[in-house]
Amino acid sequence: MRVLVTGGTGFVGRHAVKSLLASGHIVVCTSRAPQRDTNVEWIDSDLLKPGEAARVVHVANPDAILHLAWATEHGKFWTDATNLAWVAASCELASAALKHGVRRFCASGTCFEYDWPPQGDCDEAKTPAANHHLYDTAKDSCRRALAAFASQYEISFAWGRMFLLYGPHEHPARLVPSVARAILAGRPAECSSGAGLRDFMDTRDAGAAIAALTISNVQGTVNIASGEPRKIADVARMIGDISGRSELIRLGALADRKNEPPRITAVVNRLRDEVGFRSSISLETGLRDALDFWTKASDELPDMWSA
Amino acid sequence: MRVLVTGGTGFVGRHAVKSLLASGHIVVCTSRAPQRDTNVEWIDSDLLKPGEAARVVHVANPDAILHLAWATEHGKFWTDATNLAWVAASCELASAALKHGVRRFCASGTCFEYDWPPQGDCDEAKTPAANHHLYDTAKDSCRRALAAFASQYEISFAWGRMFLLYGPHEHPARLVPSVARAILAGRPAECSSGAGLRDFMDTRDAGAAIAALTISNVQGTVNIASGEPRKIADVARMIGDISGRSELIRLGALADRKNEPPRITAVVNRLRDEVGFRSSISLETGLRDALDFWTKASDELPDMWSA
Repeated sequence: MRVLVTGGTGFVGRHAVKSLLASGHIVVCTSRAPQRDTNVEWIDSDLLKPGEAARVVHVANPDAILHLAWATEHGKFWTDATNLAWVAASCELASAALKHGVRRFCASGTCFEYDWPPQGDCDEAKTPAANHHLYDTAKDSCRRALAAFASQYEISFAWGRMFLLYGPHEHPARLVPSVARAILAGRPAECSSGAGLRDFMDTRDAGAAIAALTISNVQGTVNIASGEPRKIADVARMIGDISGRSELIRLGALADRKNEPPRITAVVNRLRDEVGFRSSISLETGLRDALDFWTKASDELPDMWSA
Repeated sequence: MRVLVTGGTGFVGRHAVKSLLASGHIVVCTSRAPQRDTNVEWIDSDLLKPGEAARVVHVANPDAILHLAWATEHGKFWTDATNLAWVAASCELASAALKHGVRRFCASGTCFEYDWPPQGDCDEAKTPAANHHLYDTAKDSCRRALAAFASQYEISFAWGRMFLLYGPHEHPARLVPSVARAILAGRPAECSSGAGLRDFMDTRDAGAAIAALTISNVQGTVNIASGEPRKIADVARMIGDISGRSELIRLGALADRKNEPPRITAVVNRLRDEVGFRSSISLETGLRDALDFWTKASDELPDMWSA
């Protein structure tokens, strides 16, 4: 199958591309900067420019689209004005998909679309939508419009809702890198109490999961998550244990954020039973690899995050 | 105030434009065909073409936007693929509004966005959304994204949900024209039982109402409706009475549509109390004018609807 991937150089996208290539598919990626990976066909494009979504689909002529591109700048994406531009670009991409006879459209959503139940897991069919931030409201509004459109025009449509991801190339201000980097520098890793339950998934698994969803015929919303809730504190502790510097983990050193949700966890029956995907990277392995990544990456940090 | 109106030549738009002009505002309209009304500044534009939404806002440089343009082709608009393109164009319009410092954005929704309560009126705050057709799902998804965006960027945002409209230039296959035209031709007007309750509003009132909403500072969703529910049968009977040919009204001659909703009616407190708008055209006056319109229009009908 010929798969057009938007956002294929991103945090999850790079792993989705690898996974699609590994299962024998042809991958065409859009990118705002020229790329060197010759296993992939590249189309230089900024999808937020007028007419680009239609042009890209025309040039790529894909059988399926995996649409991962969206506002992603750390700290800014929650409220970024481009969230609305991404709704527009996503709708244009789906319109172009119909015009060019693309029969499968998969895109990524977020666990922030849910009104998280304090006592249970987020269920694709039962948990209502919330309006936490512009980001998740734009995502979920986009999903609703795309789903109705795809249903009307018999395009097979899936929406993978990503839960909490960690892994290589993660922004250094996020939980795993900030704890890992403090420890690597021999500094105390000051954390909040970390009492909340979260579903953590390695981005390599998340990329493989959404690639599997894309090439499946499963339709509708599918949680992309490990199905193994963990306390945030346990993740910090595990990084301490792996590195042999558990004394540097200072839980409760920072105040808990106001209105911190007690749990953001997922029902994963659809991903497991319908898509047939199972996580292959345990939290311990994932955190060990993250520590390795930050050990090697520390020198190149300023460059990596200056863009 | 300088108001950019999209869809200003349409069924509701033409009356909104008149109303804005009458209250002393400067009106800039987009149109796909050159127009002659010199009270209005015209911008030739097809808003579904890439980049047009941004260009139009740049050229118009408005203080406020009244966005009425959308898929409207009778019978086709429920499922038309352009519904998704209109979501994209509407998001681009709002993005351009932010860029150009437009402080007020008003757009039109539909009563079909609601999951109509069988026993009561649709309430902006309480009645949940439904997914009846691509049209209303696209509209309501668009509203949700625009509302979150406007809230984030302090653009004053309103969404006028139109209920059942009738009036001059209505498509001849719809209720009022089809009954009026049968009677004018001396033919029996075959109707279903017409037991359902609906909120009918003359398009001249609807145009005036959404113009009033645009120039107000009322935010959020506002029902555009008369607040006077009528049985569909009563509307047919009234046309018969006004024309003096009540014997031609044949209620029950056609089978009722399956799943015909028992009521589509509106709470109008926001429109009345917050916007301060009251309908000025009674159903009887509106239907009398519609009959006059169809008396005069019968000769030009093929031209009017051949586009």
